[in-house]
Amino acid sequence: MPCPVARSLERVGEWWSILILRDASLGLTRFDQFQRSLDISPNMLTRRLNALVDADLLERRRYSIRPPRDEYILTEKGRDFWPVLCSLLAWGNKHFAPEGPSVVIINRKTGQQPDPVVIDRHTGQLLTPSDFQAAAGPAADKATQGRHSYPSQ
Amino acid sequence: MPCPVARSLERVGEWWSILILRDASLGLTRFDQFQRSLDISPNMLTRRLNALVDADLLERRRYSIRPPRDEYILTEKGRDFWPVLCSLLAWGNKHFAPEGPSVVIINRKTGQQPDPVVIDRHTGQLLTPSDFQAAAGPAADKATQGRHSYPSQ
Repeated sequence: MPCPVARSLERVGEWWSILILRDASLGLTRFDQFQRSLDISPNMLTRRLNALVDADLLERRRYSIRPPRDEYILTEKGRDFWPVLCSLLAWGNKHFAPEGPSVVIINRKTGQQPDPVVIDRHTGQLLTPSDFQAAAGPAADKATQGRHSYPSQ
Repeated sequence: MPCPVARSLERVGEWWSILILRDASLGLTRFDQFQRSLDISPNMLTRRLNALVDADLLERRRYSIRPPRDEYILTEKGRDFWPVLCSLLAWGNKHFAPEGPSVVIINRKTGQQPDPVVIDRHTGQLLTPSDFQAAAGPAADKATQGRHSYPSQ
């Protein structure tokens, strides 16, 4: 699938994968840390970690020879997933946290909570769906072009 | 799960659901339009559409009585997913589109392509992982607090 959203999802389009990236962004690196955080079966965790390593989002590093133990560090691509996590977090807090947020983003220095919004880096303009839309790009195939020929909702 | 990322994923944490929201943001509303775009089995599409309606991300509207036909319109919550789509798209284009982007975001008026970044609406500061971090919020349970006690990567 050529769509960049679909391509992203091919790498992380699984519940567990996104939560593992979330945990890695929080500083978790070791199998048992992920397992405790996620309450996930060892088999499933192994599979998801392997897939994230194969997708070059996590890097495996051996930190103990005996017993053999690996840790998992975010690659550059994996760290670049952070804005997606911020957007998901903001959306979740806005709509699905009636009891108040259980996770927030804070400024490391000031502790203040930002209001995460997506803008155009060049102009500073908010990327609202009324001002912006997705469009077929130079590498679009026929299916992609067709999908972008509807009047937007 | 109290984490807002996990809560978001409960609603959309399935490949197809995110692609349906993508297509709805592009203006697709009807079953056959989604089916053509996604190349998905009717059963699976029905299930995912129902789940998105149950999650209040799409609203079902009957547009034909005979034969009975529904269309699917984004709710406010569904439209609010747009920044997540923009972040996913930017990430996909940056890392997984070696042949060039097949989808881009454009300014509806000028046609110019923004560079989508996540900032703090209050201060304009870029939400980089070096300046910002996730932290347990007021409604955090014990597991959430534990997950946020690691030194960040």
